[in-house]
Amino acid sequence: MNTHQNTLQESLRQITELLQKHRLVENLIHKQESPKHDLIESLVHRQHLVELQNRLGRLHPADVAYILESLPLDERLLVWRQIQAQRGGDVFPEVSEAVRNSLVEAMNREELLALVSQIDTDDLPDLADAIPPDILQEASESLEARERHWLHSSLTCPKDSVGQLMSHETTTIRDTVSLAEVLQELRHRGELPPQTDKLFVINARHEFMGLLPLETLLVRDPQTRVAEVMAAQAVTFNPEDKASEAALAFERYDLISAPVVDERHRLVGRLTVDAVMDFVREEADEDALNRAGLSGEEDLFASLWDSARNRWLWLSVNLVTAFIASRVIGIFSDTIASLVALATLMPIVAGVGGNTGNQTIALVIRGLALGQINAGNTLHLFIKELGVSLLNGAVWGSMMGLITFALYRNVALSLVMSAAMLLNLIVAALIGITVPLLLNKWGRDPALGSSVLLTFTTDSMGFFIFLGLATLFLL
Amino acid sequence: MNTHQNTLQESLRQITELLQKHRLVENLIHKQESPKHDLIESLVHRQHLVELQNRLGRLHPADVAYILESLPLDERLLVWRQIQAQRGGDVFPEVSEAVRNSLVEAMNREELLALVSQIDTDDLPDLADAIPPDILQEASESLEARERHWLHSSLTCPKDSVGQLMSHETTTIRDTVSLAEVLQELRHRGELPPQTDKLFVINARHEFMGLLPLETLLVRDPQTRVAEVMAAQAVTFNPEDKASEAALAFERYDLISAPVVDERHRLVGRLTVDAVMDFVREEADEDALNRAGLSGEEDLFASLWDSARNRWLWLSVNLVTAFIASRVIGIFSDTIASLVALATLMPIVAGVGGNTGNQTIALVIRGLALGQINAGNTLHLFIKELGVSLLNGAVWGSMMGLITFALYRNVALSLVMSAAMLLNLIVAALIGITVPLLLNKWGRDPALGSSVLLTFTTDSMGFFIFLGLATLFLL
Repeated sequence: MNTHQNTLQESLRQITELLQKHRLVENLIHKQESPKHDLIESLVHRQHLVELQNRLGRLHPADVAYILESLPLDERLLVWRQIQAQRGGDVFPEVSEAVRNSLVEAMNREELLALVSQIDTDDLPDLADAIPPDILQEASESLEARERHWLHSSLTCPKDSVGQLMSHETTTIRDTVSLAEVLQELRHRGELPPQTDKLFVINARHEFMGLLPLETLLVRDPQTRVAEVMAAQAVTFNPEDKASEAALAFERYDLISAPVVDERHRLVGRLTVDAVMDFVREEADEDALNRAGLSGEEDLFASLWDSARNRWLWLSVNLVTAFIASRVIGIFSDTIASLVALATLMPIVAGVGGNTGNQTIALVIRGLALGQINAGNTLHLFIKELGVSLLNGAVWGSMMGLITFALYRNVALSLVMSAAMLLNLIVAALIGITVPLLLNKWGRDPALGSSVLLTFTTDSMGFFIFLGLATLFLL
Repeated sequence: MNTHQNTLQESLRQITELLQKHRLVENLIHKQESPKHDLIESLVHRQHLVELQNRLGRLHPADVAYILESLPLDERLLVWRQIQAQRGGDVFPEVSEAVRNSLVEAMNREELLALVSQIDTDDLPDLADAIPPDILQEASESLEARERHWLHSSLTCPKDSVGQLMSHETTTIRDTVSLAEVLQELRHRGELPPQTDKLFVINARHEFMGLLPLETLLVRDPQTRVAEVMAAQAVTFNPEDKASEAALAFERYDLISAPVVDERHRLVGRLTVDAVMDFVREEADEDALNRAGLSGEEDLFASLWDSARNRWLWLSVNLVTAFIASRVIGIFSDTIASLVALATLMPIVAGVGGNTGNQTIALVIRGLALGQINAGNTLHLFIKELGVSLLNGAVWGSMMGLITFALYRNVALSLVMSAAMLLNLIVAALIGITVPLLLNKWGRDPALGSSVLLTFTTDSMGFFIFLGLATLFLL
């Protein structure tokens, strides 16, 4: 694989080089207007494009997607135009959300319609965010009735639900036939959908009955009836189930594919491990960006304008909270004026509170994601985190007290520093547990926003506690 | 699945209830010493344990692991003791790293040896961190020579490499036989290892030749030779390959299993999607905790003492950096003494710099993880992020300048505020790109520590720029 990853990096390097040559020639053509030069250079030009197409043609759609994601916008669109017509439908679903949007923006209505008609119906629900609704509507009208129905029901499923991730390609067999008949039927079909490790057994009413692993087909006596050897106990999902819960089940039970059934237990689709894995990766990526206050859709090579705007919401929230914290300091400006050392020490109290609070948040968010936190142990968790903050506040608060004394030789100031550290660590622990738990209870993503709220509180309270104590005891 | 997740939550609830009853009775026994009571209560006591064992017995090992992870330490150990002897070997590998350590600490040498001997050899390399080396050594001596050899070579693979994740259960077939012979052989064996979607084709020297999907076995003519229908082009891995790169390949090519070969192209193992998926999840979890300065091994229900210590390294780093930043303010105490408004405004400059810098870091880390950043586009990225910070600095710096004017009616102070915001956003962008890129270049995890270094720089530089400009232009 090292070799494989290197080959991919090498492809990227070669393609980047080709693109640079291409650009050079293009610039030359634009500068020199003589018709003779023109002819030669446009030949060279065309040669580069042919070579580019050849190179791209040898790559797996997922690798082409990787190349697209790694190129700045202009080059990305040039490469996309080379493959759009023939392989667009395979490559587009593999591209990350942010880059997808940049491609869609560069295409006109006809191109988009052509692209959507090339895409596998299974992939469309997941792409619905990127494709304009009217295009999706128009494209869906040319589908067969069954596929159209399936697409429609998938699209109406909630965001990040099993219904959005599931595939409509299920290989079903009846419970009454023999393994030999199943084998004959499969041989007749000639191929199975990807990620098929088991067949789904249904009865005459299309109700899901059980699973028949391919392994069973291979090793058991062909004269056996399906109903005798199928696994009737199976993990099934409902289209409305949360994709994150399905992902946990796939991890726990090492699933490769699983049936999706409706409330009347009729088989409606199939969830496969590749879709689940893509979902897990996207969620993890999005979470990491969300925690830093970025929308998960920011593309590394987005235009300057798009990037700047993507950061505005967070910047403005951040400015407002910083402004409020700064007003807290403003209340105590007389105190600071009479003892400037306070201005020097106050960011320490605020900063340490923010950092330890974020540790608590990270633990609570993970516990919530893994379903480890419930009504029975919340109190236990509260007591433990309060204990940790008391212990750490006592130890590190005393240490900062000593350092303060070494710097300013002022016992009262040292005591105020120690007490403020201890109190702000307790505030941090309380907020660090409460905020993600409340966000989760209200059905929000606990990762989104808890950190902002926490830092706001530990900053404001840190300044308030420290300067307040100073006003009471030092003036 | 909703139903499934609910069932699991319900099991947890029932088990917690049983444990509480158990505890109540235990307390009664300890309090009342009369022999008659004793007898009755110890009967009730035993009844609870039997019921507990029954309930646990019905759960999948991964579900038992979930129960263990969701229980505070005492209850966790009580549950573990009920299943340790019979199912410990199945449950232990499913438990998260942090909880594994808490179980190991509670077991003596004999129990550990018994546990390790129950665990599938395939799972041992991944558990090597949790099990004391001498126990592992002693247990490995009772293995068959082939398994012992395999375990030894797995254990010597670097951390987070393919070699640590791979399984030794490969189902191999010779290239010269016919499909009918393969089918006969499989029927003879009676079962396949889990996650088998393809068989590995080898030649007489045990060299890997290609893949034979089970599907091919089912749908092709049994008289065909393996060599004719096998897929000779295959994604293979080396035991030394990084697990994270293998995970990207599994995602890109939707793999379920893949051969692991040594440098002489001999088959040494098999990598399966369930191991890859567990790895991806663990990495994502660990990253989220690491970014908050926690070791990935912190258990939600760790003892107070362990939890407090786990946060000390970060707390002390944080105190040192906060202290240095505070010394920067100390340099300018005369300036602050003559204009207290500066103390009020300086945290805004520092805070906004830290937050926008963390946005840049989050983007760069994701780009690095997906392999999108390379020598060819680093400069482009630099220019873009600098552009974004200039634009945002100009817009939001001016706004803060206006707000400052509204508050203090001091034009010079407003201009200093605007300029300091702009400059600190530029510092944040530069550090936000440079630090993760450098850490990555030096072979370190860019997620670990970049945030600390960034916040340290944006705090110190924020204070320095703002107070420095104020000293130059306002005094």
